[in-house]
Amino acid sequence: MKKILIINTGGTFNKVYNPLTGALIIETNGDALRDIAKHWLTDLKVINIIGKDSLDMSDKDREEISETIKEHNEKSIIIIHGTDTIDKTAKYLDSANLKKEILLTGAMVPYSIDPIEATANFSSAYGYINAIDKSGIYIAMNGVIKDYKRAIKNKEKGYFE
Amino acid sequence: MKKILIINTGGTFNKVYNPLTGALIIETNGDALRDIAKHWLTDLKVINIIGKDSLDMSDKDREEISETIKEHNEKSIIIIHGTDTIDKTAKYLDSANLKKEILLTGAMVPYSIDPIEATANFSSAYGYINAIDKSGIYIAMNGVIKDYKRAIKNKEKGYFE
Amino acid sequence: MKKILIINTGGTFNKVYNPLTGALIIETNGDALRDIAKHWLTDLKVINIIGKDSLDMSDKDREEISETIKEHNEKSIIIIHGTDTIDKTAKYLDSANLKKEILLTGAMVPYSIDPIEATANFSSAYGYINAIDKSGIYIAMNGVIKDYKRAIKNKEKGYFE
Amino acid sequence: MKKILIINTGGTFNKVYNPLTGALIIETNGDALRDIAKHWLTDLKVINIIGKDSLDMSDKDREEISETIKEHNEKSIIIIHGTDTIDKTAKYLDSANLKKEILLTGAMVPYSIDPIEATANFSSAYGYINAIDKSGIYIAMNGVIKDYKRAIKNKEKGYFE
Repeated sequence: MKKILIINTGGTFNKVYNPLTGALIIETNGDALRDIAKHWLTDLKVINIIGKDSLDMSDKDREEISETIKEHNEKSIIIIHGTDTIDKTAKYLDSANLKKEILLTGAMVPYSIDPIEATANFSSAYGYINAIDKSGIYIAMNGVIKDYKRAIKNKEKGYFE
Repeated sequence: MKKILIINTGGTFNKVYNPLTGALIIETNGDALRDIAKHWLTDLKVINIIGKDSLDMSDKDREEISETIKEHNEKSIIIIHGTDTIDKTAKYLDSANLKKEILLTGAMVPYSIDPIEATANFSSAYGYINAIDKSGIYIAMNGVIKDYKRAIKNKEKGYFE
Repeated sequence: MKKILIINTGGTFNKVYNPLTGALIIETNGDALRDIAKHWLTDLKVINIIGKDSLDMSDKDREEISETIKEHNEKSIIIIHGTDTIDKTAKYLDSANLKKEILLTGAMVPYSIDPIEATANFSSAYGYINAIDKSGIYIAMNGVIKDYKRAIKNKEKGYFE
Repeated sequence: MKKILIINTGGTFNKVYNPLTGALIIETNGDALRDIAKHWLTDLKVINIIGKDSLDMSDKDREEISETIKEHNEKSIIIIHGTDTIDKTAKYLDSANLKKEILLTGAMVPYSIDPIEATANFSSAYGYINAIDKSGIYIAMNGVIKDYKRAIKNKEKGYFE
């Protein structure tokens, strides 16, 4: 098995309901991934950074993701990211020429509301990264796992294709 | 994306509670996989056969799995199987020399009781099979995805390692 | 058993996640109550009206609730209502002098996110109304079931007391 | 609000899946009720005794329930009990002439598999007991809350009526 680093940057995947305000907020300690690991009876190495909705992600945030990837020895990286700008971040990381296997994933519905989709997105990324043998930037969403240039969010239908 | 055939043979993955008898029984129509596909916003091609607990699987059942694999054109096969004899079926299929990519997976806890583990097992198999480029028989359970000869169920601890 | 009419007016109880917008919206067809009835193996008589967040409720809406109560023969009424103005509606109905047993209930967290609290609030109202023998306006929330004048939402802690 | 004592005796309500054996076993520490209390944002006073499937309940066990009721000052008692002999225990307690408000409840499906039914049964008992003003032995199941002599389990259909 490969050593995988999971970089958790926020996004819908991590949203939880705040009963005091009635709003969905991003949980920034990685509770969702910890819950998946616990039920899956496995260990996951997770770093929690940024903690933003993807619409609020700046290039400075993308630079932080890129630096985090460089700082770590793992060659296999899964990034949890909001879906609205997941393609932008993928492109940014492509330009950075990191020479690693990088899979970006996320969720259309928060793990806290529907754990199935988020779990399946993450786990399919986890399976894929364990088998690929070439560097690149990929997106894994809704059963679609492709080079990032070809994985497109259908904003009307609400899934990737 | 590869064309994947999912052969659903029963096992804990598919067990549901029967309130009239108080027993867990194997649901044989693939409701669990259908539910995953629905939440994952994707389509899965599933064939439901056998519908047994893996302790009840005979070599005749294994032959049926083997024949089902041969009858279909898909080169990528995911088999949902009970965990107690998943290694036996893997060995049987290995002997059959099928020249396909075959991943066996299942669950320690029924999908109907804890959907996370079953979803993660299945989805990691789905991700892995999309990336591998050589034939073989693999097991995907609890974050472990390996050649079947090296994926072992720890019966005391209740997970694969 | 008494004949109970459930008037479903919206509120957090009925909110669901809209993956296309990322927002929580009020589901106005009574899916949450239907789901409770299905799992509870019982039938519930539900009328869906208004479909608003309680902060958006006007006195015109309260009049609609009052009229709906008058139009129906049932003497036992459960109202699903947002919690922020549940006390205002209770007071309004008290003034209307309806001479029925009226229990208002709702949820701090949507049924679609955490079914336990919403189910417990509703079912405790259901149990209470089956046993009381005098008209009045009551609130049932978080294990507190009282005359509406004494059931207060603690907005800092996020529950009724 | 009344002071309520909850006597948790086991039954389907408390069953959980044991992944090592594949069997459902009775959880005897009251995890299910603790989970309901946590989500409901309330406190419950629970005593866990016996911890049996109701088919295994003996008159000695019923005597233990009766003694537990006598030993405590609370006049309002909710008993969590298996459904197969809930009527027998009700009759036993009726003979004991305890002069308290006693509601027996349980579940057709374990809380750990379907939390809705178990929560609704318990919460409807909780609501009912807060409103009744006369001693007696009642059963609360599937929206039916009646004197125990009139609440009957339909074993073919799998609910009370």
